[in-house]
Amino acid sequence: MKGFAANEKNRLENATTQTKVGIIGAGPVGLLIGNLLLQAGIACIIVEQQSRDYIEHRARAGLIEYWVVDYLRRYGLADRLLREGAAHARCEFRYRRQRFSLPYASLCGDRTHYVYPQQELVKDLVASFLNAGGDLRFETPALCVSKPATTTPTIHSSTGDIVCDLIVGCDGFYGVTRPSLPSAAFTIFEKQHEFRWLALLAAAPPSTDQIIYGLHERGFAGHMLRTSKVSRFYLQCADSDSLNSWPDERIWSELEIRLSLDEPWSLTRGPILEKSFLDLRSFVCEPMQYGRVYLAGDAAHIISPAGGKGMNLGLADAAVFIHAVRAFYERQDDTFLAAYSQQCLPRIWRAQEFSHWMLSIIHPPAPDRPNATFMHQLQIAQIERLRRSRAAAESFAEDYVGYNMVLE
Amino acid sequence: MKGFAANEKNRLENATTQTKVGIIGAGPVGLLIGNLLLQAGIACIIVEQQSRDYIEHRARAGLIEYWVVDYLRRYGLADRLLREGAAHARCEFRYRRQRFSLPYASLCGDRTHYVYPQQELVKDLVASFLNAGGDLRFETPALCVSKPATTTPTIHSSTGDIVCDLIVGCDGFYGVTRPSLPSAAFTIFEKQHEFRWLALLAAAPPSTDQIIYGLHERGFAGHMLRTSKVSRFYLQCADSDSLNSWPDERIWSELEIRLSLDEPWSLTRGPILEKSFLDLRSFVCEPMQYGRVYLAGDAAHIISPAGGKGMNLGLADAAVFIHAVRAFYERQDDTFLAAYSQQCLPRIWRAQEFSHWMLSIIHPPAPDRPNATFMHQLQIAQIERLRRSRAAAESFAEDYVGYNMVLE
Repeated sequence: MKGFAANEKNRLENATTQTKVGIIGAGPVGLLIGNLLLQAGIACIIVEQQSRDYIEHRARAGLIEYWVVDYLRRYGLADRLLREGAAHARCEFRYRRQRFSLPYASLCGDRTHYVYPQQELVKDLVASFLNAGGDLRFETPALCVSKPATTTPTIHSSTGDIVCDLIVGCDGFYGVTRPSLPSAAFTIFEKQHEFRWLALLAAAPPSTDQIIYGLHERGFAGHMLRTSKVSRFYLQCADSDSLNSWPDERIWSELEIRLSLDEPWSLTRGPILEKSFLDLRSFVCEPMQYGRVYLAGDAAHIISPAGGKGMNLGLADAAVFIHAVRAFYERQDDTFLAAYSQQCLPRIWRAQEFSHWMLSIIHPPAPDRPNATFMHQLQIAQIERLRRSRAAAESFAEDYVGYNMVLE
Repeated sequence: MKGFAANEKNRLENATTQTKVGIIGAGPVGLLIGNLLLQAGIACIIVEQQSRDYIEHRARAGLIEYWVVDYLRRYGLADRLLREGAAHARCEFRYRRQRFSLPYASLCGDRTHYVYPQQELVKDLVASFLNAGGDLRFETPALCVSKPATTTPTIHSSTGDIVCDLIVGCDGFYGVTRPSLPSAAFTIFEKQHEFRWLALLAAAPPSTDQIIYGLHERGFAGHMLRTSKVSRFYLQCADSDSLNSWPDERIWSELEIRLSLDEPWSLTRGPILEKSFLDLRSFVCEPMQYGRVYLAGDAAHIISPAGGKGMNLGLADAAVFIHAVRAFYERQDDTFLAAYSQQCLPRIWRAQEFSHWMLSIIHPPAPDRPNATFMHQLQIAQIERLRRSRAAAESFAEDYVGYNMVLE
C-alpha cells in the first residue's frame, strides 16, 4: 500500500546527515547557490518540497537581467539560455491609444534583458547540479529550522535532520525558514496594494517584440514575453471578480480594448493555459539573517511583477550569499556573512521603490477617488517625461536593467 | 470725509476706456506682461485691487529660475535682481540626521537659480512700467469680465469699464477672471493635500547657503532663502493646530529638532515677522483661455511651494502670452494665441508632477497609515537614489532648474 511504502521509506531515510550549507528550496535562488557551492567544493544539500516535474514546469518570471546572464555564463550555467533565450532591449508604454517604446538597453551600455522562462532556468540548474553529483532531495519538505544561533543550525525535514554550518532559506514567502526564526529579531515592512491582477498564460505567440505596459482607464493591461509560442498577460481586475467572471472571450476582448492604439495593431489569441489572481504585495524583512540562518529571494522580500525584478533580486541575494560563503570557507573570513543583509537591502529597497513607482503609473486611479482626474494627469506627465527627457529615460533604464551584482 | 472722497473719485473716473490688452492683477505675471507689451508698443492697462505699498511688500516666492533671469535681462528688467539677488546652485536634503547636497545647476549646464524675493521683483516691474508711462491702476478691483467670446471683451472695474481686444487674468486663484467665464468650458483638476504647513518669515539671517528640505519623522521642515537678513521656514503641522499652538519658542525648537544632524550645525533665530497656515493645494484649469480672455499664473494653476515652481510657472505663461500677443498685433497671426493653452499645459503638468513628487518624499507618512513604515523606506530609497545615481540627479536637476521658455 502506498501509505505504508512512504512511511517505510521515511523510516529508512530518517537518519541525521551533516553538511556545510543547507539550502531550503529548489527555486532559481536555491539552485544557483547549490550549483556555485558545488563548483567551489563546498558541501551542500538542497531540500525541496515539490517534485522535480512540478518545479520544472512551474511558470513564473521570464525576464532575466543582463548581469544575471553574465554571472551564469561565467560559471558555465548559461549555455541553453544564450542559445534559446531572446535578448530584449526595449519596453513599451501604451496610454491614450498611443505607444512609446523606451530603448532602455541602449541608454545603459547595451545591457539587454534576456527573455527566458523561469522554469527553463530551473531545468538547467537542476540538471547541472545533479550532473555535478549534488544532493538534491525532491518531495522533501523542510518542517522547520532549529538552533539558528548556534554553530550547528539544523533543518528538520520529512526524511530526517540535516545538521549544517550555515542554512539559507530560499523557500519563498510562505516557506518555513522565516517563521522558524524569532520574530522579535526582524522588522517587517509590508504593503498590500489596492489592486489585483488576473495573471494569464496563453499558448499564443507574442503580438509584440517588447513587453507592453498599458495604462488604460479600464485598468492596467500587460503583455509580457515568454517564448515564441507562449505569452503572459496581466489584466487589472476588480476585487470582487471570480475566475468565472473572466471567460476567455472576455479576457481577449478586454486585452484588445486596453492595449488598442490609434494605429493598426492586432492581438494574437490562443488557448489560455493558466488563469489565476495575483494579489499584489510588497514585503521586506530586515535583517535577512539570524545567527547562521540566512534568507534569500522571496523568503525575505516580495515585490510586484511590475518591472520584472522579483527573480533577479533573489538571484542577486544568491550572488552575495555565495561570495560570503566562499570567503568564510576559503579564507575563514566571516565579515561578508555578517554583512549579508547590509549588502542586499539597499538594492532591494531600490527595486521596491522602482516597482512601486511602476505600479503607480500603470494603474488608473479609482474613479471614485476625490483626486482621480488630477492623479491620472500626473501619470500621463510621468510617462511623457520618460518620453521627452533623456535624463529621466536614463534613470528609468538604470533601474530597469538592474544593478551589476558581480562581486569579486 | 474719507468715504465721500472715494465715491467722488469713483464718479469722476467712472468712464469707459479702451485699450488693446487688459491685464487684471499686478503680480509678477501681470506686471511682466504689461512691461513687455509696453516695450513692444502695444497699449495695455493693468488693474490691481491692492495698493502699491501692499503689493510691494507682500512676501511670497523667492526662487527665480535661470531662464526667467535671462528673459528679464534681455528686456532690461533684471538690473537690480542681478546686483542684489544671489545665484544658487545647490539644494540640500536632510533625512535621518544626514545631509545630502544636490548640485543641480552643475548637472544642468550651470543654470543657477536666483534667490530674490518676489516683492522686490514686483517693485522693479512696477517702477519700470510706470517709468515707461504705463497705465497701472492700484486699488482698482476688477469686478468681472464680460463678453469674453466677442472682439470687445470688457473689464468692469470699480472705476469704470475697460473695453479691450484681449484680456489676461493674472488675478490669482481667488481672482474674478476665471469665475467670469462659463464653467462648462473648463475642466478642473484638483488635489487638496492631506498635509498643512506653518509658513514663517523671520528676521533671521540664513543658517545655510542652500535651501534645505528636511524629511523628519515629526514632519517636514524647510529652510528657504530670501535675503541676508530674512529667511523663510516651513513646518508641517497638524490640521487641528491653531497659531496659538505655535509660539515662537516652539517654532524654533521644532525647526532645530527636525533639521538636526549628526554633525555640528546650528540654527540662527530671530524675530518672527509672519506666521500663517498654508493648506497645500494643486489645481489646474484646462484650457487656460476662452474666447479672447486668457488665464495666466495662479488664476489657471496652483502648485505647492515644494520645488519653488509657482511664480516661475506664471512667468512662463506670461512669456508664452507675450509672444502670442506680439504675433497677433505685429503679424496679424493669431495661431499663437489659439495655441496658448496647448503651449503652457505640458510644462504646467510637468511641474505639477515634479512638485507632487517632492511633496511625496518630504512628508513622512502618517504613522497610523497601514503602510507607513514601508512607505517611509521608499522615501529614503528615493533620496538615496538622487544621491547615488547621476542619471536620477540629472533628471531631478532638469525639473528643478526649470524649462527654458525663451521663445523666438
